[in-house]
Amino acid sequence: MVLSALVHPHGIYKGAWRHPDAEADRVNDVEYYKKVAQLCERGLLDLFFIADTPAARTDNLDIWTRSPLFQNVMEPVTLLAALAGATSRIGLGATVSTSFFEPYNIARQFASLDHITGGRAAWNVVTSANDYAARNFGLDRLPPHGERYAKARECLELVKSYWDTWDQDAFVFDKEKAIYFDPKKFHTVDHKGAYFTVHGGLNIARPPQGHPVIIQAGASESGKELAAQTAEIVFGTGAEPEAAKAFYSDLKGRMPKFGRDESQLFILSGLSTVIGRTREEAKEKFEYLQSLVPVEVKVMALSNDLEVNLLDLPLDEPVPVDRIPASSNLHQAYFNQIADMIRGQKLTLREMANKYTRGSKAMCATANEVADFMESWIEQRCCDGFMLSPAVVPGSLKEFIDEVVPVLQERGIYKTAYKGKTLRENLGLYPVANKNSL
Amino acid sequence: MVLSALVHPHGIYKGAWRHPDAEADRVNDVEYYKKVAQLCERGLLDLFFIADTPAARTDNLDIWTRSPLFQNVMEPVTLLAALAGATSRIGLGATVSTSFFEPYNIARQFASLDHITGGRAAWNVVTSANDYAARNFGLDRLPPHGERYAKARECLELVKSYWDTWDQDAFVFDKEKAIYFDPKKFHTVDHKGAYFTVHGGLNIARPPQGHPVIIQAGASESGKELAAQTAEIVFGTGAEPEAAKAFYSDLKGRMPKFGRDESQLFILSGLSTVIGRTREEAKEKFEYLQSLVPVEVKVMALSNDLEVNLLDLPLDEPVPVDRIPASSNLHQAYFNQIADMIRGQKLTLREMANKYTRGSKAMCATANEVADFMESWIEQRCCDGFMLSPAVVPGSLKEFIDEVVPVLQERGIYKTAYKGKTLRENLGLYPVANKNSL
Repeated sequence: MVLSALVHPHGIYKGAWRHPDAEADRVNDVEYYKKVAQLCERGLLDLFFIADTPAARTDNLDIWTRSPLFQNVMEPVTLLAALAGATSRIGLGATVSTSFFEPYNIARQFASLDHITGGRAAWNVVTSANDYAARNFGLDRLPPHGERYAKARECLELVKSYWDTWDQDAFVFDKEKAIYFDPKKFHTVDHKGAYFTVHGGLNIARPPQGHPVIIQAGASESGKELAAQTAEIVFGTGAEPEAAKAFYSDLKGRMPKFGRDESQLFILSGLSTVIGRTREEAKEKFEYLQSLVPVEVKVMALSNDLEVNLLDLPLDEPVPVDRIPASSNLHQAYFNQIADMIRGQKLTLREMANKYTRGSKAMCATANEVADFMESWIEQRCCDGFMLSPAVVPGSLKEFIDEVVPVLQERGIYKTAYKGKTLRENLGLYPVANKNSL
Repeated sequence: MVLSALVHPHGIYKGAWRHPDAEADRVNDVEYYKKVAQLCERGLLDLFFIADTPAARTDNLDIWTRSPLFQNVMEPVTLLAALAGATSRIGLGATVSTSFFEPYNIARQFASLDHITGGRAAWNVVTSANDYAARNFGLDRLPPHGERYAKARECLELVKSYWDTWDQDAFVFDKEKAIYFDPKKFHTVDHKGAYFTVHGGLNIARPPQGHPVIIQAGASESGKELAAQTAEIVFGTGAEPEAAKAFYSDLKGRMPKFGRDESQLFILSGLSTVIGRTREEAKEKFEYLQSLVPVEVKVMALSNDLEVNLLDLPLDEPVPVDRIPASSNLHQAYFNQIADMIRGQKLTLREMANKYTRGSKAMCATANEVADFMESWIEQRCCDGFMLSPAVVPGSLKEFIDEVVPVLQERGIYKTAYKGKTLRENLGLYPVANKNSL
């Protein structure tokens, strides 16, 4: 079972920063993140993961000020480099968008991070999903979904070519013979594609992992194809077992045609937990959390993911079905989940707002019940592990690590020590051959 | 007197990596760089600086393998973030090119580094000076000098606007009132220029220094204008006092028209030293260093900076004057220095190759003589300090710090402790007002 933590500064719940456990004013303090990363490492998590978007939204500031999302977050690769020395075994992963970063820079940053961490880097390949980011990069709006994915595919291929610039043993440092590197082990990168044309090579040795681990989300058709071909960690979708199973077998079923073994891709289901000594206690804790979020902030979240404004609607009536846009250009999984709730017409807007927590399976339960759930999802092949999305950081994360991890270990379904030194070794991924050395 | 160290992995001398003191095989080891940064901090240097270019050259591999330059170097901002925790007072600066990085990404990386270091970040604004880099970014060759500078100017202006997105006290973290930030203290960045059009804002709090410190080189007319208007540290040019003085008074003389005080820009003269107990001992050490470099590697260096191939010429004759290209598109100062040597017709190609060490004032001397030289250059207003360019890292750097710094301190012309916590404080630079708060 693979466990990763998705670490937002204060947690994924919109009211998290107001919780007494949240250290809100440490959002720009690197020592705070070191503490959280060390907590994750104490829990033997495989990956400390930072989601990102390159934009401070300029709309609805009165809502964002009550529920900050990405208004004040460090550039993730820079932050992870600063955490490297405070950790020694946990993987360090971050989102960097193929829409707004040059392949050369992505390749070099993650190669550097992989060297700095001794082989613990992971890149979450995203195409970005908001127009606010696009406007920081000279575009009025994001290109259409299909075009973004085509560019992402080409960018990823090019980044991998850059990582293969040097053979793993190219640098020999022979002072006597005056040979720093073996020129036969340098491979020029020549690429001419729809989005990128380059001739050159990466000016850093091949990463210790060969290639840093590749993470992807994407529930869309093009997302699944790209993931089946190239991803090693994928965010699962589906809050219910049947949907999760369908996604799991769909995605894994696409791998053989790319010559890939199912064991080489880990689907991690989102898991947000609120743990109590009893289920009732957990529910009380959750209700307290929810009470920290003003309802209009929750409606705003629905509006964002449905890609239409719902703030003008009455709170205590269902949402008219004709408010659902024809199609999604951003996160299809979230869009579908909300559209389904509206089509059901069973919930008022207020109820939907309180229920919707962005694709995460929110669990209010005892530690044993959480372990039961996790075990059952793995057994049913709903997922290969979990992307923990702590409601409050560091509170909910500490709770999980102190209370659930020991139960999983007692049951023999979670490791009691890191196996390898690199993330790739810890996950059991095959080494990556250099395409030029084959 | 301001002191900075320009840290190439093994030193700036082309044979440095072969020196017994050089730890060549640690080029990808972050612990090595931590040690070097700590050494600089022990010497109370103001700045640990990394030069960079985003390319592994694809030509003449047989030469680069004997004299590696930027073939295997970490992405500098990522590396500096990893060094932050190993140091506490020294400034950490790096080159990032305005030709190949998006303003948003530059602003966010340096803002993050500034937070991570508690206000010790510095950005060396360059337009890049080689076509090898251009070809990693979809261009056949670099745009012309003037165009690169126009883009650099606009990029720098935009980066500063991003740093001013938030007032310094915008984030209030008031849990009780549910106010994370004061929306009146968020300032949208709207920019429409020749090279960039953006609407948005940086999603990280204003850097602790307001703006990270701005470094520039550039001996060209457009370089000097940009520096006089915007730079806080500038690389001096001129190996002889008269040339250095002329540059110094020229550059400082341009500042008043931009409303700037001369004290707010530090011109650092390049200084590479080989120190001996006697001058003879120093010269022997230097000759040993030079012996580590094959002559064709030295001719290659001349060729690069003169922007024309000289490898076909006889070594023991002067270079024909008609080999000098009509004008420079890359480093004008280096180009002029070589062109002048050729026009003099006093040196053979071999002698020129042995003499030319890329604009650095190479000194073979005792510690006292080095201190005399430094004192005299400061007194004559040739510079405000020095950019140490150690021949061998860490050897020459350790030598300077152990032997020259104490002499400077005894003479009362160098500090005996860091004064402030941020680089800006240590340099005595004024705080930077937020343009939106004026």
